[in-house]
Amino acid sequence: MTEQKSIRIALLGLGTVGGGVYKLLRRRAEEMPNIVGTELEIAHILVHNLEKKREGVDPALLTDSWETIRDDPEIAIVVELMGGMEPAYTYIREALQAGKNVITANKDLIAEHGGELLDLAQAHGCDLQFGASVAGGIPILRLLKQSLAGNEITEIMGIVNGTTNYILTRMTEEGMEFSEALAKATELGYAEADPTADIEGYDAGRKMAIMASTAFHSRVTFSDVHTEGISNITATDIKYAREMGCELKLIGVARQKNGEIEVHVNPLLLPQSHPLATVKDSFNAVFVHGDALDDAMFQGRGAGEFPTASDVVGDIIDTARNLVSGCTGRLGCTCYKSLRIKPIDEIESKYFLRMAVEDRPGVLAGISGVLGNNNVSIAQVVQKLKNQNGKVELVVITDTVRERNFRDALTILNSMSMVNELSSVIRVY
Amino acid sequence: MTEQKSIRIALLGLGTVGGGVYKLLRRRAEEMPNIVGTELEIAHILVHNLEKKREGVDPALLTDSWETIRDDPEIAIVVELMGGMEPAYTYIREALQAGKNVITANKDLIAEHGGELLDLAQAHGCDLQFGASVAGGIPILRLLKQSLAGNEITEIMGIVNGTTNYILTRMTEEGMEFSEALAKATELGYAEADPTADIEGYDAGRKMAIMASTAFHSRVTFSDVHTEGISNITATDIKYAREMGCELKLIGVARQKNGEIEVHVNPLLLPQSHPLATVKDSFNAVFVHGDALDDAMFQGRGAGEFPTASDVVGDIIDTARNLVSGCTGRLGCTCYKSLRIKPIDEIESKYFLRMAVEDRPGVLAGISGVLGNNNVSIAQVVQKLKNQNGKVELVVITDTVRERNFRDALTILNSMSMVNELSSVIRVY
Repeated sequence: MTEQKSIRIALLGLGTVGGGVYKLLRRRAEEMPNIVGTELEIAHILVHNLEKKREGVDPALLTDSWETIRDDPEIAIVVELMGGMEPAYTYIREALQAGKNVITANKDLIAEHGGELLDLAQAHGCDLQFGASVAGGIPILRLLKQSLAGNEITEIMGIVNGTTNYILTRMTEEGMEFSEALAKATELGYAEADPTADIEGYDAGRKMAIMASTAFHSRVTFSDVHTEGISNITATDIKYAREMGCELKLIGVARQKNGEIEVHVNPLLLPQSHPLATVKDSFNAVFVHGDALDDAMFQGRGAGEFPTASDVVGDIIDTARNLVSGCTGRLGCTCYKSLRIKPIDEIESKYFLRMAVEDRPGVLAGISGVLGNNNVSIAQVVQKLKNQNGKVELVVITDTVRERNFRDALTILNSMSMVNELSSVIRVY
Repeated sequence: MTEQKSIRIALLGLGTVGGGVYKLLRRRAEEMPNIVGTELEIAHILVHNLEKKREGVDPALLTDSWETIRDDPEIAIVVELMGGMEPAYTYIREALQAGKNVITANKDLIAEHGGELLDLAQAHGCDLQFGASVAGGIPILRLLKQSLAGNEITEIMGIVNGTTNYILTRMTEEGMEFSEALAKATELGYAEADPTADIEGYDAGRKMAIMASTAFHSRVTFSDVHTEGISNITATDIKYAREMGCELKLIGVARQKNGEIEVHVNPLLLPQSHPLATVKDSFNAVFVHGDALDDAMFQGRGAGEFPTASDVVGDIIDTARNLVSGCTGRLGCTCYKSLRIKPIDEIESKYFLRMAVEDRPGVLAGISGVLGNNNVSIAQVVQKLKNQNGKVELVVITDTVRERNFRDALTILNSMSMVNELSSVIRVY
């Protein structure tokens, strides 16, 4: 143990998460000497607007000058909670170059530049921790890096976006259509004014890139992640899902097999017996399969002021303990492999395919012929009653098929006169 | 970083978990330099019987001499997987006194002597880690000590015994009686030849003592934990539970409120909407509520060769990283408080009370009078049809009542001629 002087911290940003971290550090201040071996002191808070009234925050701590923080040699930990790429990227680089440890919740930045920033941290003997970047209140990155480090992780499946899980829960439980459920989510503050990143799966994709990198010891960036969102999902799809004993969830999938990785986010029909199928509303959960661990699942709030602050403060405490024990940088980048990332064309899935077709002889033969010619074998066909327009609704569940073959078959089906509409195409677990 | 020479490990015991740890360390051997920064080498394995054939184990590693291991200055980590109190207790003490780091899965020992052994480890600058002592494959202790360290934890509820969860699942899903389900568990190897520690809640009680100590920063030993088992639970109780929308589970409860702790293990009627209600068969799960975290739940296998080995190897890797970074002992005992532990008499619960009563006027008035005189207020009464013997079955659900008052009321009810039998007394969440 080195000398027990207090550890000085700078917060960058005082929004929802920043405010939560500030409050939580103050709430626990008296216990910190017992928890980490010394006091933690918030010395600076970087904000845009010094004039804004901030309830319960000591105004003497506020600054709008990053340079003041960067050039203060007493600052040992910089906590970046501004979000977005710039100036966060520059500030984190400069902090590490100045030998300061960095804690961040910034998934956009880490999903893009995580590897490079970890290398920079290592070069300067600093900690770079980003536990809160993935799913607030679910410390999955620390689990993967530490507790599960003896495992070969082969699969991670996550419900890692609370907005879409809330929307799908409303569609499932109340039969709402997507637009109505989105409006409800917006009204309750679960969805942002521009919900694109959530509903198109980009937010989940960034989190999956970070988790896959950590779990598989091989760098995955957001651009490697194929994403499909939920804006085309209908109440009818969900009704069919439940008839099949399934729940429809937006799932991030990361798999490692034979030295290759696949990472994608898409709507998925999950059997109701799967642990993820029971995760409702805005809760998040991460299901992990490891060769020793077998199956495990970790669920929590996923977002929000205090659950996210819980992760950030957990990381701060870990780094503070490293400072007290003189071992910052003890746990750096663990990406020591370079595994091939499969393009989406090569991945294999089962599919649920719902279409409106002509009500005449030969239709089923025509459709199954197209599927067969493209190596898409059929597990199950359900022909539903005619709809209001006299069309027949046909539901096909395929066996496991290669994405490229399936897409080729879809292109042909789309061009056939007997197929009036390809209503839904959803992967099945 | 200190010099990168290999880290030498001794395993004490080569039973189910010891064998799993041996295999897992061998399986990951090539990756260890990437994971921890150096090689891990199993240098000795302590066994009782040197003559026994052990498939796949290098016989040159086996020894029956603890002194050989203790006196080998090259051994940096001792992994104790023998179980039981002695000689494990002596060996761990001697290992720590010799400056060796210790990893153990021994819940009996830690639930009794954890505090003292942590102090000893700290005095010698060593790690003492026992993540596998609680629930194999659920790294709850590391979560509590690190990731959730910014929280005030107020409640932990755990299904931490797979044997009893398997038995209750069979009773629930197949209507089996306890003895039949126990026989099935024994047949499948889920229950030991002497199942007492499992079915009476002692095993779960030890795990709760360890978790409560870690979560509340205040030492709780097994003798502080009130335990009730499941051997008196009947299929009828479970049938009633389901009619009430509940599952019956054996739950370990640890709560902190107003500077006091309660820790107990007992059958509990849980609403089907509670996350723990969905945890079936031999799976374990731990539900945690913290002031920042809100609700979270972690589930996994709970036991078995490899899930437990996963935890042990996770701890070995953590200690190996500390050795590489020169910071063993960085995370010692976190029990810096001495909170009062409530005796069971003072705890408060709701109760499900099932009894066979005489079929005559005045019975309900008599019973509710006794309850009322003892400050036990009634939330709900259900009078069931007569059973085969012409007795009426009465089910009472109480409001939250103090244990002592409730027990006083039960004593009086038991002595009343109108009450033929107090069939079941089960706590309700």
